[in-house]
Amino acid sequence: MNAPNVLTGIKPTGQPHLANYIAAIKPALELAQQPNQQALYFVANYHALISVHDPEVFRNYTNEVAATWLALGLDPDKVIFYRQTDVPEILELYWVLSCFTPKGLMNRAHAYKAIVDKNAEEGLDVDTGVNMGLYTYPILMAVDILLFQTDLVPVGKDQIQHIEIARDIADNFNRTYGETFRLPKYFVKEETAVVPGLDGRKMSKSYGNTIPLFASSKELRKLIMKIKTDSTPPEAPKDPETSTLFTLYREFATPQQVEEMKRKYQTGIGWGQVKQELFEVIDEALREPREKYHAYLEQPEELNRILEQGAKRAREIARKTLQDVRNRIGC
Amino acid sequence: MNAPNVLTGIKPTGQPHLANYIAAIKPALELAQQPNQQALYFVANYHALISVHDPEVFRNYTNEVAATWLALGLDPDKVIFYRQTDVPEILELYWVLSCFTPKGLMNRAHAYKAIVDKNAEEGLDVDTGVNMGLYTYPILMAVDILLFQTDLVPVGKDQIQHIEIARDIADNFNRTYGETFRLPKYFVKEETAVVPGLDGRKMSKSYGNTIPLFASSKELRKLIMKIKTDSTPPEAPKDPETSTLFTLYREFATPQQVEEMKRKYQTGIGWGQVKQELFEVIDEALREPREKYHAYLEQPEELNRILEQGAKRAREIARKTLQDVRNRIGC
Repeated sequence: MNAPNVLTGIKPTGQPHLANYIAAIKPALELAQQPNQQALYFVANYHALISVHDPEVFRNYTNEVAATWLALGLDPDKVIFYRQTDVPEILELYWVLSCFTPKGLMNRAHAYKAIVDKNAEEGLDVDTGVNMGLYTYPILMAVDILLFQTDLVPVGKDQIQHIEIARDIADNFNRTYGETFRLPKYFVKEETAVVPGLDGRKMSKSYGNTIPLFASSKELRKLIMKIKTDSTPPEAPKDPETSTLFTLYREFATPQQVEEMKRKYQTGIGWGQVKQELFEVIDEALREPREKYHAYLEQPEELNRILEQGAKRAREIARKTLQDVRNRIGC
Repeated sequence: MNAPNVLTGIKPTGQPHLANYIAAIKPALELAQQPNQQALYFVANYHALISVHDPEVFRNYTNEVAATWLALGLDPDKVIFYRQTDVPEILELYWVLSCFTPKGLMNRAHAYKAIVDKNAEEGLDVDTGVNMGLYTYPILMAVDILLFQTDLVPVGKDQIQHIEIARDIADNFNRTYGETFRLPKYFVKEETAVVPGLDGRKMSKSYGNTIPLFASSKELRKLIMKIKTDSTPPEAPKDPETSTLFTLYREFATPQQVEEMKRKYQTGIGWGQVKQELFEVIDEALREPREKYHAYLEQPEELNRILEQGAKRAREIARKTLQDVRNRIGC
């Protein structure tokens, strides 16, 4: 019995911010460290094509996300790390599995249904603004999973349906031609606490309140100084649990530093001072990854080399599955 | 300016019969003879996968249809003759173009609408029995056409919409990224007269009144003897224009033989005699193709070699288009 395959897709959506790192990247990198598994991480750029129709942006998103994960410690010798667009087998299987996907399954997909509801509310044709990539992407997700004989997919709660759809499609195929695909299981990732942004609301691009993960020291300091605080005077005791600054500090400081900071909140510390210390721990933690990140972006050939190396390994698995599928359908 | 590319897809649906030959294959083979064009003919077996989920049947359909066209004179040195499943570039482009296909376009596709109407009439969910291959096949058809920079597609009237959809999709892509795909044109093939079957109705598998194109001499004779005739006595003059036997005879006999047969109808000839002469001309015309057909089926490696050779030429064109597409989207 081989080690189970654990698969994670990474949608390239531009420069990551601190909340992406804390809530998604850090836990995923920790997961990749676990022994007795073969982790596969891929840049889901074919998914990005559903909405990104600018070649510069498309390329930058892909490179930035790949550079981010490598800079933060993803080990491409251990993890099979590839770009979706480098594995053409994915799209061969995509058509095959389309022929085993009832249309009703797509009609019930959450993301599509949400758009239909929104369009209906606004009195529009329900399919307004829906392209066929958007409508059918759950099949592509199923392929992403099934082609690599994935055993386990870590998901957020909102993605459980994708795994169920993948299982349904795999089951349809297996019942027709015999056991071909492993039925993937999911496990729901622990919800990380909400990471607050500059204005105290959830950090999110749509709120425009983000701190870019790889901002320069100078920019980072400037942004941290902008984080909204209340008017409690420096000497007054403060509650760390309701403080944006403390919430961010905790993610980057050592346990000892965290304890110390808690004490300072109780005994009184000015917001400016907290901000300065927050800047210092973040800047310290991200200094090396930031340098690596920019180095990767300045050497796209090196990035390419790593991703192509990953695609080579991914395609070894993919080709095996696809050959089996082709034999079974009668090619 | 290169010679225009003219593309014809051949859906593999089992052993062809006389009407397939007269109405579809013969005119298409004549078309392939025209100078100043590059003809591409392909076995559309990925389309067959929408409904054929038995590997033996799938393989046989594909081989039979390929053997049929080669046996009847398709020249694989002149025509680029390939199997869809041998050209993976088709499915890479398929996903890309899905992202440029509004869902509304698929909702309006005739074949899908017909199923929706039928389901609604029967009080079923409108998508009952519809798999995603069936729903999305107009995109695959668009890819079949666009990937090879097709200029011209001969179509039946009922297929005009497919070309319009292909143009729409190509236009969406071209408007986003600049001129990438040629906009294909169609021309509507002349309607051949209805070919009658054993019972005088239109020859069709669904009526069970067909004469297989490559039946053995013995079987062919037996079937021809079964063709329905009226009880006019041998010596009575007969109208060739309303006679099933004559309609078939005309397709296989020389002009001189046709004139002679016309005279015999006028002066009186027994149906048995007409049947015998009909058998003789068909048997004579199909003797060689029949032998070749069976020879191909007995040497699937040779069939494979020819189709793979064709795929090699097709992929040269396909790769060029796909590479251009990948550059444009930002891969």
